[in-house]
Amino acid sequence: MKLQKLQSLIAEDLGKVNEVILDLTGSRADLIPQLSNHLIASGGKRLRPILTLLSARLCGYTGSSHINLAASVEFIHTATLLHDDVVDESALRRNVPTANNLWGNKASILVGDFLFSQSFKLMVKEKSLRSLEILSHASAVISEGEVMQLMAANDIAANEDIYFQIISAKTAELFAAACQIGAVIAAKSPQEEQALRDYGMNLGIAFQMVDDALDYSAKEEELGKSIGDDFREGKATLPVIVAYSRGDRAEKAFWERTIKARDQQDGDLAQASALITKHGASTHTLNEAKRYAALGADALAIFPECEEKAVLRDILEFSVERAY
Amino acid sequence: MKLQKLQSLIAEDLGKVNEVILDLTGSRADLIPQLSNHLIASGGKRLRPILTLLSARLCGYTGSSHINLAASVEFIHTATLLHDDVVDESALRRNVPTANNLWGNKASILVGDFLFSQSFKLMVKEKSLRSLEILSHASAVISEGEVMQLMAANDIAANEDIYFQIISAKTAELFAAACQIGAVIAAKSPQEEQALRDYGMNLGIAFQMVDDALDYSAKEEELGKSIGDDFREGKATLPVIVAYSRGDRAEKAFWERTIKARDQQDGDLAQASALITKHGASTHTLNEAKRYAALGADALAIFPECEEKAVLRDILEFSVERAY
Repeated sequence: MKLQKLQSLIAEDLGKVNEVILDLTGSRADLIPQLSNHLIASGGKRLRPILTLLSARLCGYTGSSHINLAASVEFIHTATLLHDDVVDESALRRNVPTANNLWGNKASILVGDFLFSQSFKLMVKEKSLRSLEILSHASAVISEGEVMQLMAANDIAANEDIYFQIISAKTAELFAAACQIGAVIAAKSPQEEQALRDYGMNLGIAFQMVDDALDYSAKEEELGKSIGDDFREGKATLPVIVAYSRGDRAEKAFWERTIKARDQQDGDLAQASALITKHGASTHTLNEAKRYAALGADALAIFPECEEKAVLRDILEFSVERAY
Repeated sequence: MKLQKLQSLIAEDLGKVNEVILDLTGSRADLIPQLSNHLIASGGKRLRPILTLLSARLCGYTGSSHINLAASVEFIHTATLLHDDVVDESALRRNVPTANNLWGNKASILVGDFLFSQSFKLMVKEKSLRSLEILSHASAVISEGEVMQLMAANDIAANEDIYFQIISAKTAELFAAACQIGAVIAAKSPQEEQALRDYGMNLGIAFQMVDDALDYSAKEEELGKSIGDDFREGKATLPVIVAYSRGDRAEKAFWERTIKARDQQDGDLAQASALITKHGASTHTLNEAKRYAALGADALAIFPECEEKAVLRDILEFSVERAY
């Protein structure tokens, strides 16, 4: 409901972003539009380009660069999703089969590369060296975060600090960059640029924490992707790290077998969810998410009250409340 | 021997390029330097960055941007190799096991993405919007070419035109961009920029054609990568297209089974090589390569005679002669 205000505020701009996206997924290689549009048309939230559009408006931007730059952000996100689904061997995203499931890993890797290149072509078109700087840096940080996740994946004793570094890099950095760019094209002060970056970073961290909690508690049709994916992939997410650290010897052995050694049997996922609930690990994760959401709201203090600011706060709330 | 002249001409610059490359493969995620340096240190020819360095010198460039831009070109190439080896399921490159073979597909995909981002970060550092334009376009074309190859892969009746489109995109475009950038940073005329682009494009086409011929005729230790890879992957390269079109009914059936249906048995690779020799398909491919190499030399006519121009011609010759 709250997000309806968002829709009315930026519906026109978002329509233009979608046109740019559809236009640039065209190619003489048929597989490229097929695969891109499967993912792009399958009802993504467009959260990241929305952040760019709202941030630009919040900063009083009146030009047209925000359209192409918002599309750039979505292209980087889509490229990342394509590669992630290959890396995670995911079969389902947003309730539909993943591209790698339908067209194979090879096509997903190459089309991801194509979309990544299109993102940079769009930024070049806008001649925005600062946006190029911010998004090329963000892309490097994202892949670094993904590699860190790959390395730490089965490390059941990983601490919250490593988890925090990973989600800051793989998820929150792009949220931060998407918001920052709005201030950059509006030529706002470094303080305002930093404030929007901080908002995006905290939103991204909260968003990922909720995602990680939902992977053990949500229903598949609500989450829009396979449930228990993190468990099956042996990812040491915050709920697991907390449940492990609070567990007794038998429980620790359970996590070591299922996550570290990835030796899983029927019923293990249900047992994992039960342990996470028993130790309040899910509640802890959601409380942490709320804390970061509050920091995100604080970061906006520098801006005067306005519709855009209210919607940016709504997005924070929505990101946390979807868990309840 | 000829390439020794090249070494003495640009050894210092190339040393600096290598320093930049090593510097930017550093990361808090240990896997990134491990995997990057495995590929980068395993004796690659550095052909593409060498082209940028030589082109810049040919154009009388006296600044220092060519170092970072040459490193950018090599990063894009390395990222492409990492992803290619996953797509092609290659086990060996330059006589050593591939990164995907040693560290798995996941790491190769993610580290490829990281290097791709580092490439763009370097170009941003040089504030060269034209280089960013040229290389983001080249990256899009490369992935488009790879997708086309994936789609046409087993199409045994693919004609020379499709083959030409694929190799122009997946290989020659980056050679063309690498050379073009040398003229761009030296602020030369559009004619000189186009001339260097044409040189690189023709060199790249010749280079790939020779590679495709060698995949059926070379010895593994000479080629530095697995022999018969194209055959095992069912790639419709020029030698196969020609041998198929010149073959009788039984031979056509052989190609349809092995390439189109990818139903291969012991001895099939030897039989394929024999058919390619019998029909002069390898000779045809190498003659085509020579024709493009000659076009590459012609493109340099606009430039006065100098050491750099002589070395660029040597590279054309070397690319074709390595087949003999």
